[in-house]
Amino acid sequence: MANSHAIRLDRLQSDLIEFNRGVPPSELIPTQALGEITREVLAEHSRGLFQYARLGGFRGDPELINEISRFHGADSETIFVGNGSLQVLDLLARILLQSPNPTVLVECPTYDRSIAIFKRLGARVIGISLSEDGIDIDALARHFHLDAPSFLYMIPDFQNPSGVTTSMAKRKQILRLASEFKVPLVEDIPYRELRYEGHPPPLMRELCQNADVFTVGSLSKILSPGLRIGYVIGDPAKLKAVAALAENTYLSPPPLTQAIAARAFSSDLVVSTIANLRVQLRPKWQAAIAATRRQFGSALLTAPEGGYFLGLRFPFHIDETNLIARARENGLTLARGSAFLADTGDGKQSGSFLRLPFQELSPSDFALGAARLAELMHSLH
Amino acid sequence: MANSHAIRLDRLQSDLIEFNRGVPPSELIPTQALGEITREVLAEHSRGLFQYARLGGFRGDPELINEISRFHGADSETIFVGNGSLQVLDLLARILLQSPNPTVLVECPTYDRSIAIFKRLGARVIGISLSEDGIDIDALARHFHLDAPSFLYMIPDFQNPSGVTTSMAKRKQILRLASEFKVPLVEDIPYRELRYEGHPPPLMRELCQNADVFTVGSLSKILSPGLRIGYVIGDPAKLKAVAALAENTYLSPPPLTQAIAARAFSSDLVVSTIANLRVQLRPKWQAAIAATRRQFGSALLTAPEGGYFLGLRFPFHIDETNLIARARENGLTLARGSAFLADTGDGKQSGSFLRLPFQELSPSDFALGAARLAELMHSLH
Repeated sequence: MANSHAIRLDRLQSDLIEFNRGVPPSELIPTQALGEITREVLAEHSRGLFQYARLGGFRGDPELINEISRFHGADSETIFVGNGSLQVLDLLARILLQSPNPTVLVECPTYDRSIAIFKRLGARVIGISLSEDGIDIDALARHFHLDAPSFLYMIPDFQNPSGVTTSMAKRKQILRLASEFKVPLVEDIPYRELRYEGHPPPLMRELCQNADVFTVGSLSKILSPGLRIGYVIGDPAKLKAVAALAENTYLSPPPLTQAIAARAFSSDLVVSTIANLRVQLRPKWQAAIAATRRQFGSALLTAPEGGYFLGLRFPFHIDETNLIARARENGLTLARGSAFLADTGDGKQSGSFLRLPFQELSPSDFALGAARLAELMHSLH
Repeated sequence: MANSHAIRLDRLQSDLIEFNRGVPPSELIPTQALGEITREVLAEHSRGLFQYARLGGFRGDPELINEISRFHGADSETIFVGNGSLQVLDLLARILLQSPNPTVLVECPTYDRSIAIFKRLGARVIGISLSEDGIDIDALARHFHLDAPSFLYMIPDFQNPSGVTTSMAKRKQILRLASEFKVPLVEDIPYRELRYEGHPPPLMRELCQNADVFTVGSLSKILSPGLRIGYVIGDPAKLKAVAALAENTYLSPPPLTQAIAARAFSSDLVVSTIANLRVQLRPKWQAAIAATRRQFGSALLTAPEGGYFLGLRFPFHIDETNLIARARENGLTLARGSAFLADTGDGKQSGSFLRLPFQELSPSDFALGAARLAELMHSLH
């Protein structure tokens, strides 16, 4: 007993609870099975694996494209595969951002790396306030009208960083407006398959044939981030331009990693990994919601039905640099919440945001981290 | 006899001789050995191979960086690894092209994809005329003075597309001018190890510590194009910016392909592959030079000491579209020679250029192709 108490104290003082990483737990990546698949792929068609991609393979390995086509029920002509979904998003944004001084609308908060990409490409990035069921539709209509944006970027399922899933009603409203104002939509769906309860609403692309919808997918959260495989489904003409740009930037992703991914689909490893992730992550998700409700009550933006993240929104300003430094002293690493917030364009930048990822933390670690954070917030405010 | 004669006629009529591809012969890629290495790498440290790159791994896998450091005798801090050298060049150019309305100087002719990258990034691309021993130094000095270019891009060894190797004297003159005008140099060296005779002059980076030299290397021509591994050696501060841009574009190359490449170096597969390539490609190179001299005489720009390519320069204009169509009818595929020519900026755009790759062709196929081309040129001019 004395010993276990000592360990517990030690934990409290020095063990770091990391609230700053959106990385899948290494033990949930099907490493063994991926190794087996790699050996099979090497045995079967090794020659092409170390050569340049076949001519015309700049849209991606044809077998992998077929598998993604089957997985999504999408025509193979509408699919482009790249080195991870971030790169796919970068290429797609380059094609969509052709006007001078372009504007991109995003959810606020949204994925910080996406904001960084759009800004780097010279776009003005405007955030549309996000609540429990999706973005503010009135604000969206206003900005569609005022800003003639190049596209709207959204993460409709278990959003990173807030956990929000856009409701069916809002999906339809967004599509109606996008169609009316002829604004392309980019839906980014890395977490969509990681649903722990409830039923998935259709993808934006499944709901509407009229609007110009691009669906950006990734294998990073449902199979392996190390394969660096991402893809986009959308208008073949635009994706042809994306493929030409990819060829002119890096030729193609490695044939080997694409062949591994193709076989991971065809051997049902993707589907079984998703099933396992749902089982393994569910208890962490449940515990994280309970602990966050207990410590933060209504600051919890939503109780998500899947994904990796809980979002906290506070009505007051936080000195982030101080918070992060103090958190560190208290055995807690935090991501900079303001990095997820694009300017809303109307001067309303009140309040603060924090993202709490739960996928790598045991229920007890999450609870401990949440307790440390609550104490700290109390002492700072 | 009758039968073999029939085959010969058939060849002349329908078999295509391809003069348009810079691809390594598949049988010279060490596919078996790479498969073995992949199995070893999987057995030894499989977990990390399918996860995100380790934090701080955005400059590349540390083991691979160490191997490249050893291979080149360069400090590991000066190395960045990306998804193939084309992508490395794209990232590096983005960092170097920060001024408004930038200019890039290139050799004329030069690699068509490099011209395309620099133009896509908004640069004015000016070609400096290339002769047998390297670029025109007077023209270089004039353009350094007039255009304050963001950098000079050169392929100093067995240049693609001309086969030219920049002489020691010109390397030193270029470095002196680059240092005087403070213009960074980018040397691209994919073919450097494929030397079939003579001794290699030092790299630009080995000759000078003063000038800002970036050396872009690739494993595509000395090991495997399918691994998509390229790298750059240069100023650590600039490469830190390149790494930040890479992280913000695609995170990192796949850990698996990087681990395979690292072991290909440490197991001496890279060195033995280079030795084998020299042995296997030498007869093709010898035969190609002989056949080209026979058919084209002084139009051969240089008799290169290595690489994949011979360059033909004609003092008259060729209607390329017509030439390529007619060549096709005569069982010959040609690349568009004008794609290798950047505007020289002084209105002198006379003459024409053609690239003849020999690495994939048997001596007899090359000779047949050269004969067909000579006949065609004769009929067109």
